[in-house]
Amino acid sequence: MTGEAGQLQQTIRASIPLSEAMQFSIIELNPRNILVQAPLEPNVNIHGTGFAGSIYSLAVLTGWALSTHIMALKQMQGDLVVAKAEISYRAPLTDSIQCRTQVSEEDCAAFQLRFESKGTAKLALKVEIGASGNAVLRATYVAVAGV
Amino acid sequence: MTGEAGQLQQTIRASIPLSEAMQFSIIELNPRNILVQAPLEPNVNIHGTGFAGSIYSLAVLTGWALSTHIMALKQMQGDLVVAKAEISYRAPLTDSIQCRTQVSEEDCAAFQLRFESKGTAKLALKVEIGASGNAVLRATYVAVAGV
Repeated sequence: MTGEAGQLQQTIRASIPLSEAMQFSIIELNPRNILVQAPLEPNVNIHGTGFAGSIYSLAVLTGWALSTHIMALKQMQGDLVVAKAEISYRAPLTDSIQCRTQVSEEDCAAFQLRFESKGTAKLALKVEIGASGNAVLRATYVAVAGV
Repeated sequence: MTGEAGQLQQTIRASIPLSEAMQFSIIELNPRNILVQAPLEPNVNIHGTGFAGSIYSLAVLTGWALSTHIMALKQMQGDLVVAKAEISYRAPLTDSIQCRTQVSEEDCAAFQLRFESKGTAKLALKVEIGASGNAVLRATYVAVAGV
């Protein structure tokens, strides 16, 4: 884990109590992709598999963390929130929960260009959860300048 | 809160660590509707308002709790999971988080009838979050007999 990943993880865990409860950890962080992991134990449901709420929360934070990292790298000063999201659960998670997402160079450039010209921009991300496509989140984040 | 609400809340909080971390509480529970509440403090985000993951998790548990209650009342023996969900965030939550949902008598009867004839049935619920429509979740739950 790079220093930037550790710093971002620390910021998130210090500011969002639920991320601490879930043991949200950034395993890899690069300018266009991220890998997040959390142990199963604090995130189980009544059946002993991954809790739907934990899976969603870890995935939505995965996209938020990558978007925030991109904004920092591109010196886009502002606030970032999730506007809407949809999730499909395909198979139960029986081990630690991994979430990964990436953004293309084109989408990244369009996000920055729109933010700089309009003061607000959307970024749509697809977050894949689990090693065998256990769940998929599609979330739309909105960046607003100078908040 | 009735005894049934207290018992269901206790089962959820004992089995799902995240529900305990969020301080998930059932305020009202009836055969066709439910009201859930959680304090803001354990559920804040980096901006000091309701964390998107907490809002989703509380809402998805609200629908799960009502569906589970209906299954118990109608003696539908089986397992209940959420298959898919979508959420829209309209305005930040700055106070305690309330979630409510209800099901019509017709949907309830169709859910039971299909479960009894097919051994599996879906129930789609709309969960409203916050006093002023701060967020809305639409979730589809699936009941499977005898698991």
